[in-house]
Amino acid sequence: MAKEIQTIGVLTSGGDAPGMNAAIRAVVRQAISKGKKVKGIRRGYTGLLAEDIVDMEAKDVSDIIQRGGTILQTARCPEFRTEEGQKLGAEMCRKHGIEGIIVIGGDGSFRGAQKLAAQGINTIGIPGTIDLDISCTDYTIGFDTAVNTAMEAIDKIRDTASSHERCSIIEVMGRDAGYIALWCGLANGAEQVLIPEKYDFDEQKIVNNIIANRKRGKRHYIIINAEGIGHSTSLARRIEAATGMETRATILGHMQRGGSPTCKDRVYASTMGAYAVDLLCEGKSNRVVAYKDGKFTDFDVDEALAMEKQISDYQFNVGKNLSI
Amino acid sequence: MAKEIQTIGVLTSGGDAPGMNAAIRAVVRQAISKGKKVKGIRRGYTGLLAEDIVDMEAKDVSDIIQRGGTILQTARCPEFRTEEGQKLGAEMCRKHGIEGIIVIGGDGSFRGAQKLAAQGINTIGIPGTIDLDISCTDYTIGFDTAVNTAMEAIDKIRDTASSHERCSIIEVMGRDAGYIALWCGLANGAEQVLIPEKYDFDEQKIVNNIIANRKRGKRHYIIINAEGIGHSTSLARRIEAATGMETRATILGHMQRGGSPTCKDRVYASTMGAYAVDLLCEGKSNRVVAYKDGKFTDFDVDEALAMEKQISDYQFNVGKNLSI
Amino acid sequence: MAKEIQTIGVLTSGGDAPGMNAAIRAVVRQAISKGKKVKGIRRGYTGLLAEDIVDMEAKDVSDIIQRGGTILQTARCPEFRTEEGQKLGAEMCRKHGIEGIIVIGGDGSFRGAQKLAAQGINTIGIPGTIDLDISCTDYTIGFDTAVNTAMEAIDKIRDTASSHERCSIIEVMGRDAGYIALWCGLANGAEQVLIPEKYDFDEQKIVNNIIANRKRGKRHYIIINAEGIGHSTSLARRIEAATGMETRATILGHMQRGGSPTCKDRVYASTMGAYAVDLLCEGKSNRVVAYKDGKFTDFDVDEALAMEKQISDYQFNVGKNLSI
Amino acid sequence: MAKEIQTIGVLTSGGDAPGMNAAIRAVVRQAISKGKKVKGIRRGYTGLLAEDIVDMEAKDVSDIIQRGGTILQTARCPEFRTEEGQKLGAEMCRKHGIEGIIVIGGDGSFRGAQKLAAQGINTIGIPGTIDLDISCTDYTIGFDTAVNTAMEAIDKIRDTASSHERCSIIEVMGRDAGYIALWCGLANGAEQVLIPEKYDFDEQKIVNNIIANRKRGKRHYIIINAEGIGHSTSLARRIEAATGMETRATILGHMQRGGSPTCKDRVYASTMGAYAVDLLCEGKSNRVVAYKDGKFTDFDVDEALAMEKQISDYQFNVGKNLSI
Repeated sequence: MAKEIQTIGVLTSGGDAPGMNAAIRAVVRQAISKGKKVKGIRRGYTGLLAEDIVDMEAKDVSDIIQRGGTILQTARCPEFRTEEGQKLGAEMCRKHGIEGIIVIGGDGSFRGAQKLAAQGINTIGIPGTIDLDISCTDYTIGFDTAVNTAMEAIDKIRDTASSHERCSIIEVMGRDAGYIALWCGLANGAEQVLIPEKYDFDEQKIVNNIIANRKRGKRHYIIINAEGIGHSTSLARRIEAATGMETRATILGHMQRGGSPTCKDRVYASTMGAYAVDLLCEGKSNRVVAYKDGKFTDFDVDEALAMEKQISDYQFNVGKNLSI
Repeated sequence: MAKEIQTIGVLTSGGDAPGMNAAIRAVVRQAISKGKKVKGIRRGYTGLLAEDIVDMEAKDVSDIIQRGGTILQTARCPEFRTEEGQKLGAEMCRKHGIEGIIVIGGDGSFRGAQKLAAQGINTIGIPGTIDLDISCTDYTIGFDTAVNTAMEAIDKIRDTASSHERCSIIEVMGRDAGYIALWCGLANGAEQVLIPEKYDFDEQKIVNNIIANRKRGKRHYIIINAEGIGHSTSLARRIEAATGMETRATILGHMQRGGSPTCKDRVYASTMGAYAVDLLCEGKSNRVVAYKDGKFTDFDVDEALAMEKQISDYQFNVGKNLSI
Repeated sequence: MAKEIQTIGVLTSGGDAPGMNAAIRAVVRQAISKGKKVKGIRRGYTGLLAEDIVDMEAKDVSDIIQRGGTILQTARCPEFRTEEGQKLGAEMCRKHGIEGIIVIGGDGSFRGAQKLAAQGINTIGIPGTIDLDISCTDYTIGFDTAVNTAMEAIDKIRDTASSHERCSIIEVMGRDAGYIALWCGLANGAEQVLIPEKYDFDEQKIVNNIIANRKRGKRHYIIINAEGIGHSTSLARRIEAATGMETRATILGHMQRGGSPTCKDRVYASTMGAYAVDLLCEGKSNRVVAYKDGKFTDFDVDEALAMEKQISDYQFNVGKNLSI
Repeated sequence: MAKEIQTIGVLTSGGDAPGMNAAIRAVVRQAISKGKKVKGIRRGYTGLLAEDIVDMEAKDVSDIIQRGGTILQTARCPEFRTEEGQKLGAEMCRKHGIEGIIVIGGDGSFRGAQKLAAQGINTIGIPGTIDLDISCTDYTIGFDTAVNTAMEAIDKIRDTASSHERCSIIEVMGRDAGYIALWCGLANGAEQVLIPEKYDFDEQKIVNNIIANRKRGKRHYIIINAEGIGHSTSLARRIEAATGMETRATILGHMQRGGSPTCKDRVYASTMGAYAVDLLCEGKSNRVVAYKDGKFTDFDVDEALAMEKQISDYQFNVGKNLSI
């Protein structure tokens, strides 16, 4: 049997997400509680190549579980897409005694981890993205916080839309995925949700619907528009012209990436961080931690990246029924 | 095949929980979108017996999804535990044309629904309690909001505990269940969590641990105590006496039951409300809606009430490892 | 001595602001506690002309103090700028027995009140605007809530700006006034604040400053830009081009107008509402309620509209000193 | 003319309050921007005597403006009440080159500063307490945050009180002062406020009022009780017995001392911190910074401690009128 791992590296990569600090804290403390050493790699793969690597003790992650962002920072690293970059990365790990790395990020970050694993460094991925667009898992770090941030902002916009009898279009994040939009649609009682996965919307129908709603005495009309559809400002202009109802677009933007994580994000990110350390200690590599069918589990990275995910038709239709 | 149901009743029973309004709204609008009539029964079974019953239209549930509490109110009803009460309840349903009732509440409320079903009224239960103590489901309406409310309060207490180098004992709700305490323990990075399900705590060990932590320079010591254990104030006195560290107890109390529901509570409560209507429309009775193994599903009430539920050993131990 | 007023009207006009509901509630209940009748006029002067007028009892304002928006709604009314409109307004008041009107809004709304007063209807203005741009008063309803909403959003943006080492430009509301921007600049520890009142900014200096800060190891650069300056997106593009630092603009938009009011907004709006009723009961007209030099007081509208207000040089300079 | 001060000390003393970190940050950066050195004294006067003194640079106060508590911590120091302690304190200042000290705290802390001034060390006080019980100033650091924290908790309690038709007694902080209770009474629309400054309450009247309110259909009855009156639990028992209405007491406790400061607390605390540095640089001593009649100003400590403060009768009565 292989010698057990002694030193674990941890990095955050891709877009940051609330709860990443909880995961970092869990990695550090779970590892220390098992007698391991931990090295923090700053600014993702960029910092690995640049040897931006620091020792981490239990106290270095004190008082961070409640903070947004990532204390290890994050960055994009085009160089790491080349084989040369990947070899250098593995070399840096060996130079610093890092036998296994935990990578907190999205699909792109896991592809980087795959390459490192191919170079002989054990790697475990933890799904961290507000977009929820990782197929193997029902949970990704940051989604719960982001969707609450968006929802609270939309609650406020609804107050003023209602006072002024306005139509409001709110564009939420999610890249090519519509999860944040779908959840906000339900949670904010939106009249309309536009998401890339169900791109069947008919602008004339929306216009007719707005006019009909207004006649029935509804005081506002809320449209949640996913980032993957975009063009909220021009849509607002067209709707105002066609309906005569004052229409305003808000693009919520980067606030959705920050803020103190919710309880679920802290608890699940902590559990995933500990779970990833356990996997490395069992000698596992090239795997990604997941929460699937109500349980924390793990998948082979290749398998995970090949999975597909679908928006629930049931929830999408419930949203429609409830918006009457 | 039986004639399809035409009129649906809905009530909330037992302790209120944030998200109950989202479920009521979903019941009303899903039913209306399927061409049904809806009657709201106020103050739980008490209102049923007292004929406190109102017609509900789509607009009656406008602008409530974001509100805490329950617009239908709730109450305890000892009379409904008698067979006489149950017969009267069924009679009232028939008098008002209610063929099926959706009961939002906990185990006690489901037992009432069972009795109504035995009297010939179709019943569907929706799990609504902040305590998460319903065995057949991984989700109950209100838990997510309650645990975030508690966590945010504890974050604040930690600030001042840290400024003054105090020990703080915070008692959270949950009746006989320790879920809120367990989650807050992880989410707030508490040094110690006391829950009824793992009642192995040794006060002397805690005292020793506080003294050891203080020597290592930790600025505060947070103990989350579950309602099911209680006695926070006397525990605080004993710890202060034994450690010399200033110790304060806070009993968070009823604020944990209120507040605008989180996104998850709004989305899941809405989905469960719609799902319950669908079950009634399919002619089902004596069932409880659940979220289990990552899916919305339903169980026979008798079966559901006989299930058992356990705190995850893994998460409990992760909490211990991370509190170093 | 004139016969005492018996019936009081109340309306909200111009942009809505959190706390307006608290003021409406106070008007209604203070009036009722003094034995008066109250009529609510919906949608501002528009509703007055359209006779959209309802009787208001104490219970009609139950459970609204904590809500954003205005239950009376608001609208712009170009017709009321004509003498014809003003005469019709006064006529409507007389038709409905309204002897005095309380107008909650900004300078434009007070000008409307002036005209009504000239037509023989007693009028009292209450300053309601998130922009704080009413010269006679140090407090306007909604500013405190708006500035906290903006600050909390910027706190979140700062988290992610820090993780990614970005420059963030956040555009906050305020029309031609820079108060929200100035306060957020101080409260969020922004590196730069751009406000119309101190329009001395030199883009090259900002660029140099960003480059210098980066060299000194600062992880982010936050610029708060007032609505009155605008053009945040193009500014972001120019800064990114000149500094090489990734730069993103967020326009916070309408969320700043909504949300549950802060304690100060509830307390001050309530006090002003009661105070306005007292003025009407004393036979006063053509006055505006104010909070000035630490006291609730009132001014003649003509006098109030002629006053000028200045951004504090001291606070502006403190902001600069603290951003090092 | 005296030589200008070169080195400034800063400490926080007494109970902590949200916004103290903003004041510390402002002291450090305003001083540095004027070319001064700053020394942070940890744990109040206790740390001064124990030489727990650290150099502070601009970056040491980065990223703290948004945090509750005080990074310098605080403690009580009985030793500093003796002349011996005061002489030792002055000696420590001289040993560390501290020519002037800024003391952030309440009246007790200012008395300490007075003594230090008598020993030849220049001192400036900044009012920091959530209780607002400092007579010379209309603003104290932390009150605005505390009152919002309490209000938000009470909003939540109101939700559940309304669902269950309960009477709720909420005890808020404030020591012998009723400001937090008075503000929450108005902001939460409480039916009754009990404060030490207006201790005229008649329990039988409250009981009668509850019974009358219930008959009129009010769904809940909220009593805000000030810490200075206390005994909330026994009051709840007596009210329940006398009215038959289920009655629950909540003692909000230490959460009111923590949490991220509001915008006002950050802005005013920052301004006061800068202002205190300016005073020391002008050679002033034995003064306390204040916000009075709408302006930042300063008073002689002896004069400030002799002032008296009164609860506004007008606001107290408005609260009564609006609770109908």
